[in-house]
Amino acid sequence: MINVAIFGAGRIGKIHAKNLDIHPGVKLKYVNDINPQAATELATQYSVQATNVENILSDSSVKAVLIASSTDTHADLIIKSAESGKDIFCEKPVDLTLERAKLCEETIKKAGVTCMIGLQRRFDPTFSSLKNRLMAGEIGDPEMLVITSRDPGAPPVPYIKKSGGIFKDMLIHDFDIFRWILNDEAATIFATGSCLSDPEIATAGDIDCTAVTIRSRRGLLCQINTARRAAYGYDQRFEVLGSGGLLQSGNHKPTEVTLSTSKSISFDKPEYSFLERYSTAYAREIEHFFDVILNKTELRSTIGDGVKALELAEAATLSWYENRVVELLK
Amino acid sequence: MINVAIFGAGRIGKIHAKNLDIHPGVKLKYVNDINPQAATELATQYSVQATNVENILSDSSVKAVLIASSTDTHADLIIKSAESGKDIFCEKPVDLTLERAKLCEETIKKAGVTCMIGLQRRFDPTFSSLKNRLMAGEIGDPEMLVITSRDPGAPPVPYIKKSGGIFKDMLIHDFDIFRWILNDEAATIFATGSCLSDPEIATAGDIDCTAVTIRSRRGLLCQINTARRAAYGYDQRFEVLGSGGLLQSGNHKPTEVTLSTSKSISFDKPEYSFLERYSTAYAREIEHFFDVILNKTELRSTIGDGVKALELAEAATLSWYENRVVELLK
Amino acid sequence: MINVAIFGAGRIGKIHAKNLDIHPGVKLKYVNDINPQAATELATQYSVQATNVENILSDSSVKAVLIASSTDTHADLIIKSAESGKDIFCEKPVDLTLERAKLCEETIKKAGVTCMIGLQRRFDPTFSSLKNRLMAGEIGDPEMLVITSRDPGAPPVPYIKKSGGIFKDMLIHDFDIFRWILNDEAATIFATGSCLSDPEIATAGDIDCTAVTIRSRRGLLCQINTARRAAYGYDQRFEVLGSGGLLQSGNHKPTEVTLSTSKSISFDKPEYSFLERYSTAYAREIEHFFDVILNKTELRSTIGDGVKALELAEAATLSWYENRVVELLK
Amino acid sequence: MINVAIFGAGRIGKIHAKNLDIHPGVKLKYVNDINPQAATELATQYSVQATNVENILSDSSVKAVLIASSTDTHADLIIKSAESGKDIFCEKPVDLTLERAKLCEETIKKAGVTCMIGLQRRFDPTFSSLKNRLMAGEIGDPEMLVITSRDPGAPPVPYIKKSGGIFKDMLIHDFDIFRWILNDEAATIFATGSCLSDPEIATAGDIDCTAVTIRSRRGLLCQINTARRAAYGYDQRFEVLGSGGLLQSGNHKPTEVTLSTSKSISFDKPEYSFLERYSTAYAREIEHFFDVILNKTELRSTIGDGVKALELAEAATLSWYENRVVELLK
Repeated sequence: MINVAIFGAGRIGKIHAKNLDIHPGVKLKYVNDINPQAATELATQYSVQATNVENILSDSSVKAVLIASSTDTHADLIIKSAESGKDIFCEKPVDLTLERAKLCEETIKKAGVTCMIGLQRRFDPTFSSLKNRLMAGEIGDPEMLVITSRDPGAPPVPYIKKSGGIFKDMLIHDFDIFRWILNDEAATIFATGSCLSDPEIATAGDIDCTAVTIRSRRGLLCQINTARRAAYGYDQRFEVLGSGGLLQSGNHKPTEVTLSTSKSISFDKPEYSFLERYSTAYAREIEHFFDVILNKTELRSTIGDGVKALELAEAATLSWYENRVVELLK
Repeated sequence: MINVAIFGAGRIGKIHAKNLDIHPGVKLKYVNDINPQAATELATQYSVQATNVENILSDSSVKAVLIASSTDTHADLIIKSAESGKDIFCEKPVDLTLERAKLCEETIKKAGVTCMIGLQRRFDPTFSSLKNRLMAGEIGDPEMLVITSRDPGAPPVPYIKKSGGIFKDMLIHDFDIFRWILNDEAATIFATGSCLSDPEIATAGDIDCTAVTIRSRRGLLCQINTARRAAYGYDQRFEVLGSGGLLQSGNHKPTEVTLSTSKSISFDKPEYSFLERYSTAYAREIEHFFDVILNKTELRSTIGDGVKALELAEAATLSWYENRVVELLK
Repeated sequence: MINVAIFGAGRIGKIHAKNLDIHPGVKLKYVNDINPQAATELATQYSVQATNVENILSDSSVKAVLIASSTDTHADLIIKSAESGKDIFCEKPVDLTLERAKLCEETIKKAGVTCMIGLQRRFDPTFSSLKNRLMAGEIGDPEMLVITSRDPGAPPVPYIKKSGGIFKDMLIHDFDIFRWILNDEAATIFATGSCLSDPEIATAGDIDCTAVTIRSRRGLLCQINTARRAAYGYDQRFEVLGSGGLLQSGNHKPTEVTLSTSKSISFDKPEYSFLERYSTAYAREIEHFFDVILNKTELRSTIGDGVKALELAEAATLSWYENRVVELLK
Repeated sequence: MINVAIFGAGRIGKIHAKNLDIHPGVKLKYVNDINPQAATELATQYSVQATNVENILSDSSVKAVLIASSTDTHADLIIKSAESGKDIFCEKPVDLTLERAKLCEETIKKAGVTCMIGLQRRFDPTFSSLKNRLMAGEIGDPEMLVITSRDPGAPPVPYIKKSGGIFKDMLIHDFDIFRWILNDEAATIFATGSCLSDPEIATAGDIDCTAVTIRSRRGLLCQINTARRAAYGYDQRFEVLGSGGLLQSGNHKPTEVTLSTSKSISFDKPEYSFLERYSTAYAREIEHFFDVILNKTELRSTIGDGVKALELAEAATLSWYENRVVELLK
């Protein structure tokens, strides 16, 4: 039986707590949050203890920690947890600066602990099925990837101001999809964008829709289009053109009801948010994390993946600022 | 070059005239209609002659006739044309009585002419593709056929009164689909129905929706559901369950535009009427008719098929009246 | 906190135990099974007691029982549990004979306990969404219901021999859908069928595919087509034609991946069995059962519903045997 | 009655001849082709005369000409025809050099004749329906356009060598879609690409797949992805994200047959080539051309549109060569 602590008792921390709870062989022992009341509430729900960071890290019976606190605390908690010998699951992004993210990566390497980054899309049933079928050769060699990634609505402007910008906050997942699906690294990146939904986002120095093009080292092409606002809900699709065909991933619908009237034929719009769309992915990534720890299976979403995605987000941000193609050094 | 005459210058006569016109090797020579003005108009459009039945039948240069006049004239024109040695294309139904339809069948046999009945659904691209794939063994042996056949709206009550009832007027096509797709004959039939859209249809002695079950000689099952009114347009689908899978035919849409909004995702409803849905089928059946005459290929929709479909329509009508299963004698 | 006992520790008993476990306010206390080892295993998993029927019924702290044992034990357990004052959730069918099912219904009435029958399709997200939208008037008045209900493969012949026949074993769910969706009772029923997949099923006195037509008291039409074998998986669809349009429920797919190749465009076949398709429905029906007990909300699947579905199954069986229309008395 | 001449008796010339023939009020008078035999064959089919350019241009009874000859002859024929006072329909592109294309534009302006460029996608039923619905406000203000444009296979390398490169030969249609759908002009363009299907294309100095990003003057974003080879056929889709929703155009399928087996559910791949996909568009553009001439309706695809699309193709080519963002001057 593995004892586990959770840092962060917010929305995503609660999801992890619930998924952890149904996992046999794993036991929540502590909850920590900057807000003591939030920590106590979640701890009480699972009849465990709310406590401070130090107590958690010094308890040698705690084998693993889940970091679901705010982004600015990730790097510090990763480093301390690694130095305390804990295995780590941490939400994306590793950090908002590439420098600190790389420091985390080195610390993990030195400490020899497992560190999984929560790039949960890799665990989505549709996306992972597509990846498996691509690797099984169903469309031959991949040539082009087109990603459509749209949120149902922009987050509040105060959140945007602290988010590191749309490329680090939102596209980091899409950059990871690029690397994961094409199994290649970026050679060049070009990013542009606009602010069309809310002028306050522009005032905050950000944009709300982007168009990104990546050319990989092997010459494969990737286009990403994103928007903070899609009136019809959370739109998460991508398609891979290969030498022998096309694999596409579509959105999930709440029901399979179709209505035909004198106006049109209609069916359900996609699930509204990442919480519904990725609920299975969240459960599976936690399952995978403990499977890696308990059974020494191969980790499918490393801190290196988190750092590489951040690298692309920084390059995209630079490309957008300077309106030019950015080359990524090896 | 074959000379052709058309009986009937109404809606369907015009369609045949147009399809005939683009057929190389075929030339319209005469148009006839009970309404002289209609005949003259259509004749003028193609720079040909409007004339009476006798002139047409006695002109030995006329090799073939297309009968697109009202149902009550079909049998008479078939018999006279056959006796004049003309090849015949006649719209369904052969006649409203089985007795006269069978008389036509015998006359055709004696005269040794070609007689094709306009069961155009056999020439629809979707339906004929399904049939070919079924025969190619894509789903093994057929076991069950489910037909959905709905009109966008009921015809005027005066038309219904002279139509011979819903089974002869509307389901005759579906009975033909049953025979054509399952390649079998009916052993028993049960039909029921209701009048739900317009009480005047009931007053006229008819119904506006039906549920029919046929069990074939080999024990295959067929269910047909029909309605005179489908708010969303002309609904023409069927599916065949086989030992190895399922083949389904769906409706045709005018465009492939999809709209996603905060309410739903929607696309085009089906084409509104048989004129749009079967426009290709109408062209192909005429092409087939002249191909049979010119190249002696096998006729794919015979007067025997027309008689058999009528037989099923009569049995269905009886089943509905008496609310009982009707057996079809060999 | 409500104490609950489960009769039957088989496949469906385990599902209920799991769904019950995550329900706050409800606590499993006992497990019973004719096979003591099965009972002990399930009991151990939840750290509760395996015991006999008498102990369960005489423990006044047990408020509710879930009956998931074999069909031949249902009636006896319903009657005894009701007489012991327990609220009851019982799997379908109530019994294989209408007489004993009605006796259960009367006993429940006398005892004044809650008795829910596990007609789980009423709790399927797609089906219940369709029902709600129908009742909200999205297609006006319903006129016709077409149900397609196909299993991926036939059960073993020994099971079929004890099943009561296809109409009681398989179509009982479809008869319930008819009543639930059209909100009407049957006036007449006609059923036919064939045995096409396995001659041993015929030897066992049963059929493997059926075609059923029901005409309701208000004159609405319902067609049901079923098959024990669908090569492509579990096929559960129905559609309602209304005066203003059409509502259709489609199958659920495991993923939303689409593959385009030089041969075709393809996507996932439906989930393979009722266990996947109705996993959400199973969870929701148990949630509903305890919600009714705890919060006195209205029961949505009563023993009366179970009896009425059985009544239709008996009438369908008679219709098939005698190849005639059967009238249902009020 | 308008007399018309066709320059070019190849594949597309034949299509125009056929569409012209069914147009009342229009009469083919001459056919011209660099290959006299090709000219004679097409002329004979329509019982008209094959002749040289001079005879056509000097015949004052010829009101309009259709230019469907090879690209290198377009500019010369446009200029001569305009100076002879003929109305002109010319296939895209106007010319391979922007300079000569602009010279044509000026000549047309001076001559005061009608000149329509065959940007046939504007007349496709799906695309034009989408455009109309966009303009009707169904998704509010457009914000982003994503175009997928893939050929079933690359043309022969000798063709590619004379084609002007992929951006002028293939993407010219997509650049026109950008301008037509977003109703805006490009401010900046970035294009990259690869040669992945056939190294001989690279040897010929060209690429076979591209990724293009356009930012419009109003800040709208457009991404175009193209490939010379799509194993599954001709793939022509685009989608417009607007402030209130999404409009998507999908591919046309030859039939609506669906096959379900133990492996998957599959339907028809798209129509294989532009000849099938755009057959309706070809008919409608010719209809529109003569409608403009006869009824003075507004021309929907001008030589200015042809020049602007070429301008984008040149900028894209430059961007690709120099791997940098190119600004488009007003």
